[in-house]
Amino acid sequence: MAIRSVHDLPTPSLLLDMEAVDRNIQALGRALPGARLRPHVKAHKCTSIAQRQFEAGHRSFCCATIREMEGLAAVGLGEDLLLANEVLDARRLGALDARVTVAVDSRETVRAAFEGGVSEVLIDINVGLPRCGCAPEDARALADQARSLGLKVRGVMGYEGHVMGITSREERYAGCIESMRILREAHSEVGGEVVSAGGTGTWDFDTGATEIQAGSYVLMDTAYAKSALPFEQAFWVWATVISVSKEYAVADCGLKAFGMDHGNPSVEGARIWFCSDEHLTFSSQSSIRVGDRIRVTPAHVDPTVAYHESFYVVQGDEVVDQWPIDLRGW
Amino acid sequence: MAIRSVHDLPTPSLLLDMEAVDRNIQALGRALPGARLRPHVKAHKCTSIAQRQFEAGHRSFCCATIREMEGLAAVGLGEDLLLANEVLDARRLGALDARVTVAVDSRETVRAAFEGGVSEVLIDINVGLPRCGCAPEDARALADQARSLGLKVRGVMGYEGHVMGITSREERYAGCIESMRILREAHSEVGGEVVSAGGTGTWDFDTGATEIQAGSYVLMDTAYAKSALPFEQAFWVWATVISVSKEYAVADCGLKAFGMDHGNPSVEGARIWFCSDEHLTFSSQSSIRVGDRIRVTPAHVDPTVAYHESFYVVQGDEVVDQWPIDLRGW
Repeated sequence: MAIRSVHDLPTPSLLLDMEAVDRNIQALGRALPGARLRPHVKAHKCTSIAQRQFEAGHRSFCCATIREMEGLAAVGLGEDLLLANEVLDARRLGALDARVTVAVDSRETVRAAFEGGVSEVLIDINVGLPRCGCAPEDARALADQARSLGLKVRGVMGYEGHVMGITSREERYAGCIESMRILREAHSEVGGEVVSAGGTGTWDFDTGATEIQAGSYVLMDTAYAKSALPFEQAFWVWATVISVSKEYAVADCGLKAFGMDHGNPSVEGARIWFCSDEHLTFSSQSSIRVGDRIRVTPAHVDPTVAYHESFYVVQGDEVVDQWPIDLRGW
Repeated sequence: MAIRSVHDLPTPSLLLDMEAVDRNIQALGRALPGARLRPHVKAHKCTSIAQRQFEAGHRSFCCATIREMEGLAAVGLGEDLLLANEVLDARRLGALDARVTVAVDSRETVRAAFEGGVSEVLIDINVGLPRCGCAPEDARALADQARSLGLKVRGVMGYEGHVMGITSREERYAGCIESMRILREAHSEVGGEVVSAGGTGTWDFDTGATEIQAGSYVLMDTAYAKSALPFEQAFWVWATVISVSKEYAVADCGLKAFGMDHGNPSVEGARIWFCSDEHLTFSSQSSIRVGDRIRVTPAHVDPTVAYHESFYVVQGDEVVDQWPIDLRGW
């Protein structure tokens, strides 16, 4: 690390406040110690952050892609890896030197797990989000199929993603509880010790889940910030103001630096006009100048991080480390 | 290349129809031969595609990032590289073994070019898009400043991005002509042989630009398809259907596989419900099955390509090559 000051970093780049990361890890770790939390790595895609979660006592991880599974296994974090997603070709999973569990929601995905050499599965239940997950009434038959092939059925998972972003805590709670009722019923048909569910928006609801799959809590974004959660913003896009006009300024970060599905990113004290490929046009009350550096807060952490190669770890204005975002891609 | 069939590719991945790419390159090359087209590499970020543009006679290139400049220089395509963007630290540009021109729009960016060891600049003019570019009335003073520092001022550039996506050809033309009137007036103040402007949506308007900066025409997307341009879709996200329910199906491509600022991608014959991080939920008339492979057409080429590591080059169902997307990042 030759670069010691954030003011010498190339832009756009990602800043990571290590102390904020650690506070977020500690905050959720107190509520959900050890295996009660299965950290989802899809938000940060960074084995160095996963390592800190491991050191905080969480030794089982959740992934959305095979590449994430491979990356965690490669750095020795493969004690209990769950691919909370369906795959039709599980051979790369079967080849891992790790404990591997994969979600299944159809006869085809059960067979793929078996043929790929994976030995443990969770039955993925549709709990209301129109995405993966079998109909609850089909769960038992899938579990039977899996067991008949010699697979261990560890239990069920169900992701209540359709309620995760509801900012009203009461409405989010009501939706989550209904989803978890469905999941527990399916679990009673399937058996096994695991009921895996939840996320950053629902981590503290008492739902009967044995483990929570939260990931965004470590880094946060402006969308989750609306839900008044006990986690703080811990990363930003660091950008340079490259042009200033009478009514607006332009920073060197744009559509290739931010996931845009939740809308524009934010700059404190400024109004965002629009993003283009490599630019952010915004107006600001402050007397902003060409060459100024600014922190831009992403609206959606996961697709933002996936564009970047590394986090620059900072304490104040000092750059103390650089952590590769080494779980990108598929 | 061990993989010979698209059906054996990992998903999600990018398919590139090489023949369609070549037809697009030839179509625009006939209208804008040689240096009349300065291909913009920001859409494809791939030196293998740039090489084909070079072989078609276009030897000067346009970039949006320093990394793109470095990557082109590294493969020997540095005969005439324009960074059509402002930078405050031009040292990496000054170090390139290539002919380097950089856009400037302020006293600070002129000075940065000089201090970074870049010897040629274009004065970037605001032609109506609220982004970079100086006010036209400031152009002459910036050119004077640059020349007083010993920089060569090659001319002007101005990007009419605010009209590029207007689907009505008449309205697009009217906006473009007004922008180019501004640009030509600034050029008369600045001098130099270059008037660089334009893009895939305005390439055939007679505007007085000496060179056109088109990039998206090589690959296309559903947004540009609305403008009835003579270019064809040449790349897709290739995905696997991983789950099928009564009303919808789910493919393994999502917010990390598509730039989302232009909205959802498209699947032929299907209605898109929504994207999540690694999933696309859609309903289809056809009898779709778990394990089917589908082509998904992105809404915006540039931020889509930036998520991916390579193009799989296909002829029909045969995979004939794999081209790294080697100009990603900054």
